[in-house]
Amino acid sequence: MKQSEMLIPTLRENPADAEIKSHQLLVRAGYIRQTASGIYSFLPLGKKVLKKVEEIVREEMDKAGAHEMLMPALQPSELWKESGRWDTFGPELMRLNDRHQREFALGATHEEVITSLIRDDINTYKKLPLVLYQIQTKFRDEKRPRFGLLRGREFMMKDAYSFHDSYESLDETYERIYNAYSNIFTRLGLNFRAVIADSGAMGGKDTHEFMVLSEVGEDTIAYSDESDYAANIEMAPVVTEYEKSDEPLKELEKVATPDQKTMAEVAEFLNHPLEKGLKSLMFKVDDRLVLVVTRGDHEVNDVKLKNLYQASVVELASEEETRKVMGAGFGSLGPIHVPDEVDVVADHAVKYAVNVSCGANEDGYHFLNVNPGRDFEVTQYADLRFIQEGDPSPDGRGTIQFARGIEVGHVFKLGTVYSESMKASFLDQNGKSNPMIMGCYGIGVSRTLAALVEQYHDENGITWPTHVAPFHVHLLALNVNKEEQKNLAESIYETLKKEGVDVLYDDRKERAGVKFADSDLIGIPLRITVGKRAGEGYVELKQRKSGEQTEVHVSELLTRVNKWLKQ
Amino acid sequence: MKQSEMLIPTLRENPADAEIKSHQLLVRAGYIRQTASGIYSFLPLGKKVLKKVEEIVREEMDKAGAHEMLMPALQPSELWKESGRWDTFGPELMRLNDRHQREFALGATHEEVITSLIRDDINTYKKLPLVLYQIQTKFRDEKRPRFGLLRGREFMMKDAYSFHDSYESLDETYERIYNAYSNIFTRLGLNFRAVIADSGAMGGKDTHEFMVLSEVGEDTIAYSDESDYAANIEMAPVVTEYEKSDEPLKELEKVATPDQKTMAEVAEFLNHPLEKGLKSLMFKVDDRLVLVVTRGDHEVNDVKLKNLYQASVVELASEEETRKVMGAGFGSLGPIHVPDEVDVVADHAVKYAVNVSCGANEDGYHFLNVNPGRDFEVTQYADLRFIQEGDPSPDGRGTIQFARGIEVGHVFKLGTVYSESMKASFLDQNGKSNPMIMGCYGIGVSRTLAALVEQYHDENGITWPTHVAPFHVHLLALNVNKEEQKNLAESIYETLKKEGVDVLYDDRKERAGVKFADSDLIGIPLRITVGKRAGEGYVELKQRKSGEQTEVHVSELLTRVNKWLKQ
Repeated sequence: MKQSEMLIPTLRENPADAEIKSHQLLVRAGYIRQTASGIYSFLPLGKKVLKKVEEIVREEMDKAGAHEMLMPALQPSELWKESGRWDTFGPELMRLNDRHQREFALGATHEEVITSLIRDDINTYKKLPLVLYQIQTKFRDEKRPRFGLLRGREFMMKDAYSFHDSYESLDETYERIYNAYSNIFTRLGLNFRAVIADSGAMGGKDTHEFMVLSEVGEDTIAYSDESDYAANIEMAPVVTEYEKSDEPLKELEKVATPDQKTMAEVAEFLNHPLEKGLKSLMFKVDDRLVLVVTRGDHEVNDVKLKNLYQASVVELASEEETRKVMGAGFGSLGPIHVPDEVDVVADHAVKYAVNVSCGANEDGYHFLNVNPGRDFEVTQYADLRFIQEGDPSPDGRGTIQFARGIEVGHVFKLGTVYSESMKASFLDQNGKSNPMIMGCYGIGVSRTLAALVEQYHDENGITWPTHVAPFHVHLLALNVNKEEQKNLAESIYETLKKEGVDVLYDDRKERAGVKFADSDLIGIPLRITVGKRAGEGYVELKQRKSGEQTEVHVSELLTRVNKWLKQ
Repeated sequence: MKQSEMLIPTLRENPADAEIKSHQLLVRAGYIRQTASGIYSFLPLGKKVLKKVEEIVREEMDKAGAHEMLMPALQPSELWKESGRWDTFGPELMRLNDRHQREFALGATHEEVITSLIRDDINTYKKLPLVLYQIQTKFRDEKRPRFGLLRGREFMMKDAYSFHDSYESLDETYERIYNAYSNIFTRLGLNFRAVIADSGAMGGKDTHEFMVLSEVGEDTIAYSDESDYAANIEMAPVVTEYEKSDEPLKELEKVATPDQKTMAEVAEFLNHPLEKGLKSLMFKVDDRLVLVVTRGDHEVNDVKLKNLYQASVVELASEEETRKVMGAGFGSLGPIHVPDEVDVVADHAVKYAVNVSCGANEDGYHFLNVNPGRDFEVTQYADLRFIQEGDPSPDGRGTIQFARGIEVGHVFKLGTVYSESMKASFLDQNGKSNPMIMGCYGIGVSRTLAALVEQYHDENGITWPTHVAPFHVHLLALNVNKEEQKNLAESIYETLKKEGVDVLYDDRKERAGVKFADSDLIGIPLRITVGKRAGEGYVELKQRKSGEQTEVHVSELLTRVNKWLKQ
């Protein structure tokens, strides 16, 4: 392709609103343009990369036995009302009325459409399982669109749905798609982890998220430094074995701690390390009040609290509610003398505390030398805290480290949530009607493109891996006004094209400096520069990512190009 | 692909609302399903065909030097207000508000988005011309969605836009895209015509529509039986040379024609053929009243009237307005004694009328023996009628025939309509600022799929041409309970797959009759039936379209399949 004929509008400056590298570089290198907040156009280079990512996704999904289809973006509200999500999805679901004032949603996801379609056409176990996917534009009205393609309002997704007559069949498909996803992100050259995730409000069973490791990720992953264990931080169980110090128990003592509100303030005031204090937080777990006690250096994990109570809603109680039952505000709560209507649950670590401090349930006072068992009882000890770096890995191998991750994929055992609410059932071998068992599986395709740039860039621009690069070779004619350079470049261009090498030819009447800068920015893996030694038939060959370069005579160029591209 | 694993829900009955063959067959053969009125899901078979059509479009667009990109469906209203179309597009443009109450359009077309994008990034003739295209979902809220994929509310389009610094450059690109379109529809195997079309309200210059010939088409094409001339019926000029009869002029006479309203009634009442009467219709051309006179057997072409006056709006005057100036209602109008404020224009044929009848501008009366020149004068004679079958072709070769057509493509010289209203300008070689000159080019991709079925079907189902068929070979195991049939079919399936033959294998436990009926319905070009002679290694090979069939021994099967597929 001749660069002079292509729309590749490079910029020297970062766009004002672009906070992260992928956003900055994709705009500056002419891959994308913003049409409105969170809404982007893919220019020719961006579309090329998008297609390459899509093709890898498609190949692996096909291999996994999934069948491609295409559902509409316009979805009648009736379907969303059946599933109940018309009311629960919130303002992220974009809605509109047609000319006859019928309500529609703009597809944020397609569980409703596919479930309605399958229930109309499939009614027997003989036609199950079915695994269907599409690669399609999705719409979500993010409150705060940001980070370019990472959090947009209109974006490209691969979404898949499976239908089964048994959980064994679901498990089998789940594993196949899980493996397909691993293949996809491996082929894309991404440094990623499949992490155990929260199945959340959707009522499903297993779920994994595929996270690309990146500082700009919005999620924290806890992973083992010695195994492939990885989980979303809220999902990692704590398996630390605590030891009880043999320090003799001291006498309980109440002290004034005026104006000391936070754990850190109290610890400093009492002159002990954070871990020598107990932290007590009041939660509303559905309709019940629960005082959750952890060690001062630990954080309460409300997902674990929710799971402990199998509750629907967990939230911090207001200070007003808390004071009403406890007689004290947030800074002075503790597990001693708690009214009967309040559950006291504590993290395992609390059991091993000796001579620690805690709030006295009286504003401005704390107890010293508190000892569980002697000074207070709890309803239950449980794993209630977030895992921390340095904790042992839950799989028993290695130590937990933290990393930030960009969620690019998600596999999810839905179970019968949608098939029950939308009445998608099948007759089993005994002629009995059962709700279909479902799974859903997503990949953020345009987000993956941004994640690639987060992992593949340097200070001068993008450094694409070959299999997703918009072109394989960038051919630069440094000075097209010089006949010998122009002629040599043109002949190399024709040869490469003829040999099937995917080449972008910078034939523009621009200065050499502009061409080099644009080439670095665009990030094509291999660069051929036709410059001063064109007359002798010598050109420069350079690898974008490693910076490795060499002079090559045109007679050997094709061999060398093919060799380097294979590396 | 194994049919048992794929979602191909065939139906024996036509859907109640499906009036035409493509709609009926695509639903019955399991290619599409309706999600809402005018909104469809493409099931795996449908998606496969769609992709094949898209790929042919993509290849030819790339060859024509166009570059693929992807613009968003969500388009800020500000852009549509700049072009003026927010107000003029009407209810077909779907609109919505985001969570911040900002207005958006759902892309019905992308002139606004691309023009805004180009004006921000391109400002010099050095970077022109640019030709960009996308294959993308479009939204138009049709008042009456019908005919399945032919007139939907959400559909797949290929739209392209070009930007130029001169009309010569636009002409050159227009011709290239025109040729690309001819290649696309030829490769698709469609019987089509490129017809001269009305550039309408968009103020453009040249425009052609690509029409697939089909009885169910909503447009009428006038084409020559001896040349490649073809035009939308309203665009075809009439070049008929009339002759004046040498019959002596008779005396003007007024007769009562009580209750005779239409031309046909009057002609019958007066006992003369239709062409011996003059038809007079009152139009409002912008703010002017114009009486248009044609021969009784001709129809007024209001596009020609509009072009004659270079008017914005042409519509029939109301009977009330007409009576006010003419003193008579619709059935009794004529060109004799017309008030000065009314223009009288007549079609060329009227000039050659001798002793004809016309309305007397008095309710219930007509004149007989009317002769132009003697009895009335006209402001102007012009080509004002629709062409008719039997008229000479405007290019001087052959005679006009009519056909119905489905519009599948459109090429259009936009000129500077959008670049002027949206201020997309470039600096020319003299440093002078000019509005960019634009072209736009569309193909209805999903509509083309339906048009293919309109041309490729018989009474049993679809008869796909090979290059767009969802599979090339349909392998049927008639009775999978018989080991020898099952084994042979499986081994043929594996061989074909290994050899790269695109095969659908009907491995279902269904009766032979069901398999044959489904196979005919689905319409894969070549069928291999493994049946009773499986034990001897013989199978049946049948061409779906021609019905030609033969028995083949498995040893020769692959050779024969490849030979037949090449035909």
